[in-house]
Amino acid sequence: MAGNKDFSPAFADDQWTLVERHFEKEHNRIWETLCSVGNGYLGMRGSFEEGLDGYSTGGTFINGYYENSPYRYPEGFPGYAENNQTILNLADTRAIRLVFDDGEVYQGLAANKAIVSDYSRRLELQTGLLTRELTWQSPTGKKIHLKFERLVSFDLPHVAAVRLTITPQSDCGAHLTIASLIDYQIRRETSHQHDPRNAAALENELVIEGQEVFPEGGALLFQRTHHSQITAACGLRDRLPNHPETSKVPVDDRQEAVIGTYYTVPLKIDQPIILEKYMVYCTSLDVRPDNLRHKVLDELRAAYTSGFAELCTAQSRILRTFWDHANITLDGDDWTQGAIRFNMFHLLQSAGRNGQTGIPAKGLTSQGYDGHYFWDTESYMLPFFLHTDPQIARKLLEYRFNTLDHARRRARDLSHPKGALFAWRTINGEECSANYPTGTAQYHINADIAFAVKRYFDVTGDKVFMLDYGAEILFETARLWFDLGDFIPTRGNRFCLHSITGPDEYTTLVDNNTYTNLMARENLMFAAQIARWMQTEHLERYEQIKNKKEVALEAHEPADWQEAADKMYIPEPVNVGSEDAPHPVLPQDDLFLYKPLWNRAADNIPLPLLLKHHPLVYNRYQVCKQADLILAEFMLGHLPIFSREQKERDFNYYEAVTTHDSSLSRCIFSIAAAQLADPADPNDPYLNKALAFYRASATIDLDNHRNETRNGIHAANMGGSWMGIVFGFAQMRTHDGLSFCPLLPPGWTAYAFQVYYQERRVQVQIGPGRDSSGYPICTFTLTENKPNQPPLVIRVCEKTIQLAVLNESVTIRR
Amino acid sequence: MAGNKDFSPAFADDQWTLVERHFEKEHNRIWETLCSVGNGYLGMRGSFEEGLDGYSTGGTFINGYYENSPYRYPEGFPGYAENNQTILNLADTRAIRLVFDDGEVYQGLAANKAIVSDYSRRLELQTGLLTRELTWQSPTGKKIHLKFERLVSFDLPHVAAVRLTITPQSDCGAHLTIASLIDYQIRRETSHQHDPRNAAALENELVIEGQEVFPEGGALLFQRTHHSQITAACGLRDRLPNHPETSKVPVDDRQEAVIGTYYTVPLKIDQPIILEKYMVYCTSLDVRPDNLRHKVLDELRAAYTSGFAELCTAQSRILRTFWDHANITLDGDDWTQGAIRFNMFHLLQSAGRNGQTGIPAKGLTSQGYDGHYFWDTESYMLPFFLHTDPQIARKLLEYRFNTLDHARRRARDLSHPKGALFAWRTINGEECSANYPTGTAQYHINADIAFAVKRYFDVTGDKVFMLDYGAEILFETARLWFDLGDFIPTRGNRFCLHSITGPDEYTTLVDNNTYTNLMARENLMFAAQIARWMQTEHLERYEQIKNKKEVALEAHEPADWQEAADKMYIPEPVNVGSEDAPHPVLPQDDLFLYKPLWNRAADNIPLPLLLKHHPLVYNRYQVCKQADLILAEFMLGHLPIFSREQKERDFNYYEAVTTHDSSLSRCIFSIAAAQLADPADPNDPYLNKALAFYRASATIDLDNHRNETRNGIHAANMGGSWMGIVFGFAQMRTHDGLSFCPLLPPGWTAYAFQVYYQERRVQVQIGPGRDSSGYPICTFTLTENKPNQPPLVIRVCEKTIQLAVLNESVTIRR
Repeated sequence: MAGNKDFSPAFADDQWTLVERHFEKEHNRIWETLCSVGNGYLGMRGSFEEGLDGYSTGGTFINGYYENSPYRYPEGFPGYAENNQTILNLADTRAIRLVFDDGEVYQGLAANKAIVSDYSRRLELQTGLLTRELTWQSPTGKKIHLKFERLVSFDLPHVAAVRLTITPQSDCGAHLTIASLIDYQIRRETSHQHDPRNAAALENELVIEGQEVFPEGGALLFQRTHHSQITAACGLRDRLPNHPETSKVPVDDRQEAVIGTYYTVPLKIDQPIILEKYMVYCTSLDVRPDNLRHKVLDELRAAYTSGFAELCTAQSRILRTFWDHANITLDGDDWTQGAIRFNMFHLLQSAGRNGQTGIPAKGLTSQGYDGHYFWDTESYMLPFFLHTDPQIARKLLEYRFNTLDHARRRARDLSHPKGALFAWRTINGEECSANYPTGTAQYHINADIAFAVKRYFDVTGDKVFMLDYGAEILFETARLWFDLGDFIPTRGNRFCLHSITGPDEYTTLVDNNTYTNLMARENLMFAAQIARWMQTEHLERYEQIKNKKEVALEAHEPADWQEAADKMYIPEPVNVGSEDAPHPVLPQDDLFLYKPLWNRAADNIPLPLLLKHHPLVYNRYQVCKQADLILAEFMLGHLPIFSREQKERDFNYYEAVTTHDSSLSRCIFSIAAAQLADPADPNDPYLNKALAFYRASATIDLDNHRNETRNGIHAANMGGSWMGIVFGFAQMRTHDGLSFCPLLPPGWTAYAFQVYYQERRVQVQIGPGRDSSGYPICTFTLTENKPNQPPLVIRVCEKTIQLAVLNESVTIRR
Repeated sequence: MAGNKDFSPAFADDQWTLVERHFEKEHNRIWETLCSVGNGYLGMRGSFEEGLDGYSTGGTFINGYYENSPYRYPEGFPGYAENNQTILNLADTRAIRLVFDDGEVYQGLAANKAIVSDYSRRLELQTGLLTRELTWQSPTGKKIHLKFERLVSFDLPHVAAVRLTITPQSDCGAHLTIASLIDYQIRRETSHQHDPRNAAALENELVIEGQEVFPEGGALLFQRTHHSQITAACGLRDRLPNHPETSKVPVDDRQEAVIGTYYTVPLKIDQPIILEKYMVYCTSLDVRPDNLRHKVLDELRAAYTSGFAELCTAQSRILRTFWDHANITLDGDDWTQGAIRFNMFHLLQSAGRNGQTGIPAKGLTSQGYDGHYFWDTESYMLPFFLHTDPQIARKLLEYRFNTLDHARRRARDLSHPKGALFAWRTINGEECSANYPTGTAQYHINADIAFAVKRYFDVTGDKVFMLDYGAEILFETARLWFDLGDFIPTRGNRFCLHSITGPDEYTTLVDNNTYTNLMARENLMFAAQIARWMQTEHLERYEQIKNKKEVALEAHEPADWQEAADKMYIPEPVNVGSEDAPHPVLPQDDLFLYKPLWNRAADNIPLPLLLKHHPLVYNRYQVCKQADLILAEFMLGHLPIFSREQKERDFNYYEAVTTHDSSLSRCIFSIAAAQLADPADPNDPYLNKALAFYRASATIDLDNHRNETRNGIHAANMGGSWMGIVFGFAQMRTHDGLSFCPLLPPGWTAYAFQVYYQERRVQVQIGPGRDSSGYPICTFTLTENKPNQPPLVIRVCEKTIQLAVLNESVTIRR
């Protein structure tokens, strides 16, 4: 699946460290993506402190920081999104330049004539450090060893740090000048002309609002966007612990667009020189603009005072807790084991957790998709957080709640007098989708968010959240569905949804997309249920929401929602076989199964269709970009319409017509195949399918699938790789209590994970070995308990177990 | 229906002259549109020679002259149209300024303090002259009478002329300075933000390439577009017949952007001063750029030599022939009588007739819709020319033939390996539609053009045209349908068309739009038929087309087309009634009748929905912008599926859901209502409906419907007003010989028209009076005959008559 055969990353340290050992300029941008470090607020690509012109896409991103730019449509219509928002590449505080006293400049890996040896770049998933080492021998014979260490602090969200250790290994002259800089030249890759997945190209996006160089070393820089008028401030302080009294020369070079400090230190063979850089980022979204300078100085002081070693200690401590809760172990497939951890680590690095931000499609590793948040936050990534660190899941939902006013305005823009329509893609909550057939028409985002609210409530039982945030989200989304749909006389007065787009973006503007209708039904039902519950048990809060000026719920509405849910139209299966050999398949929408099949053989260039054909071409065919009905058959797989036979027919049918041109697709097909596998049959063909889909999906970024990794990670697919283990192979479900039905794929000796559920954590171990019936042997252990409560009931296939006491463990073998 | 109550145009001279008698600045732009003069090549709005800043949208347009501008899509996809083309407002050669010798400037109707009396502006449909008269009394007491006459020559397509007669009625000083100028300042109205019907805003669209002022008076100017690199040259020569020896001062004022000549002439009470301006326009599309100057000088010389009076004579002569063939007389409804003639006159002024141009949506009266040609050229306007001046109809079809290479490239852009897809909107043949759901997806344009080829052939029998042009159009369009559609197993292997948009632009991207499927079937059938005919009778020419490199027809293809036609899927009627009282209605497409009805009462602002709502809103409902199925029921009304009962149910159903937000709608509803009326019943409600729709449609521009006339005429609707008489009330059909079934609407005493058919012309007179069965008395007269041929057979309702001899006349009364 690798886009480039020479590119071969590997894991070390028992699959805890991603290592690049052989440097290739052409692969540098891929490694920069993979080695990005971040903390959900701040992200930095794994680019070199010394730069690498022409082979690097450096990047420093703050989640939620954006520039607005007005859309100009060649043919515009009312209600079209008015502005785009784009995440910006901020000034780079990690820049370092080294100059020897004969004037020779250390050129790092850019130099053709220098000899580089002992190279490695390592992303350490347990310490959270990005390290890089190399020995550099200049054409004039100077030889030095360099070690760079970098972290973006999980403890202090505004803080990052770099430690450089320079060890001369030959006579390199008497002194070395070290420039520790903030580089504010904006570097950006030109966007590919026809690839809508890249970021919009903005010009002169950031103005320098102010800058300061500290006499004691370090600097401050303020950048402001033109349109959105948000200021980002960054600060830098340095420490040279072995040379505290060295000379400092302030730098403010507007030509080169750098500020900072030159340090000149004596050089001696084998005597290491250490530079510690403490970096801080903060924006006027975080604090009042007039407090920004103060805040940055405070944060800088805190980071500088704790010191690099202490930051590392805190980083390891936080990651230890994270892995304690999130780690998945997998025996028998090292590459996939590494990939799973790598993916979880990046999820942790990508998720906003301040209630004002979500998870950008590319995490904080690039400007791809403009740094927007999509539906996949809730549908692909939130489950991971929900079952490992539910507080982050809550914050992601709070973010949606905080955009409700925008969503209400958006609903009015689309002529809905009531309700809220969440933005298909956005940073601050305003709709940024400029192509409505694959954007705004995807109303299902409303149901996806409501479903996440339900999932969160099912798993946490967090009533405070439901009353404070969840209920209003549920009500406003339910109202939108009720206004959007209609009871259709020619359909026996069933409730239908028209001119919408489901998850599959190759089939747009359809009627009765099965996924959407089913998910809207869940939304309507659950909203009605929560309304009834609140009317009974939390009437005051119910009245509060009801009477909120911007809500103004009418008394009959919850009953309306229930009626629409009860009468929701779900397309019937269509016979795609013959009259003699009927083969009823559930349609993706009213007409999907009446379209022609795409002749895939004639289309052998491995490009996504969306980069090759006009939408009118693939829209015409039974060809899917991604799972759509199949996603519904996973998310709502328990519904009676999804009998095993139906699921099997549908899986095979849709597998044949799906291109997986979306990275959201294969992980779902893996889960859907797992649903069909017999747990007792180690050679079940569906199990093999599930595994093949799983491996292809879990390693998309590591394998540089379609040579896209340079443009950033696929964050949602990373969430899919967690779901593939827990919802796929272990078949965990939570819609009706906690249940599992674990599979053990061929080649995997055993795997284990832990999940949060109802104030408890359960360790689930599948394998090694199978019992006499052929079922994988499974062990369930209560690793965290809820005091003074009845035992936790878990259904495991047809059995039920109970775990009552901390560390109690049940092994199931027949 | 008038958008503005104070606006009340009227006809004089037996409904042959449109007259403005009372000048209102606020209405000037409306009158400028109505009083545009043009000849299909050159068009000039009826603006004042002396200007009227702030209340005028002057305009001089050359059909087919355009600037390119690249589209920038906020989210672009492969195959999206790459460039827009925009018709440009060229330098204004008709500018005149008058300065009295005390320095006072004649300010025309702009001056607040001057007194204007005896004002009139008249568009004379018989002479083709636009005249304007007024008496102007300045604040200082000068009083002059002015008469402006203007024509754009039907005889010399590059030539226009103005004659100004100035008669002092008081002492106005000893001399008058007359400036006769070319004004090249670009004036353009800002486009309304959300109205996609206006032209794109271009900046610095024209560069001045060169200019000359003639010492003997007059000037030349060369303007070139930036991107399309087309040069337009204009020239001006003046004659002052009463003052041949007057002093001439050349003007070249770059500040004011004018060139030309100052003439100073003596002023005497009651002694008229005459200025004749001869104006020429020509472009590098007409002649080689290095011949352009020469060509303009030649044309100027020709115009100047013939003189204004001679140009007027030729203009009248040509119009006499035109009206001899085209005139419709209508007794009993003067306003409609005038409107019909006005509409035909504008059609004549709008139609390109050089085989390189079509008919812009707004004629040559504005830059609306960027001056693009659409499907309505063939479907709404070509029939008028076909039956009055078939040579123009032929040239319009030749234009399409001449864009076949662009249409083939467009088909490839949309992944069709064969065939041609005509541009939805274009000037030079390249697709300019930037919104594919209401643009490129309207594949029906292919069938509309093919249908026009069939219609042209049915009416003219022009085999040379068919062999030279028609056949290749038919083959290439048929191939596109065959590649676009598919035999669908779940539809019993019927041939279906998916993801296309029919004529109704409020319902987009549908499957099996009934209109499109039916019209595509005609296209496929007729192409197969012509292929068979050529294989039998014109094999050599057939082989020539077949072997043309860019065609490369395979032997099996005509049989494929026939098969697709034979198996074409046509949606079945849907019961919109109850089970007890079934009411089967033909659906507009697969799903139209399963969508909700639009609650029209809730939407009482008289704006087109497209200016109020996001497309996702109206797309969701059974709400039509215009006739769609109803258009098919007119164009293919003879098909067995369209029984009278079916037509009646469908008419009533679709009438209730149609907004007529498109000006293409009402004329078709008028014809469809006429189809349902009983010819013998003068009070048939459908006849009343037909009349109401007809009157509302025929006067859209004259009544300043929705205050839109300022933005140009609705050319296609003007064609619809001709169709409404001939195809509507007289119910002429030509698909199977010539037939009529005339109706006589209430209030109309009689009406008459003449049609060209098979090298003959027939005068048709309906009324006055009805026969004893109640049928209108009709007289058919052969006014032009085909020598040595069998008599012309005409079916009139259930009767058949024959006309054999020139001037033979048959009156039908029962």
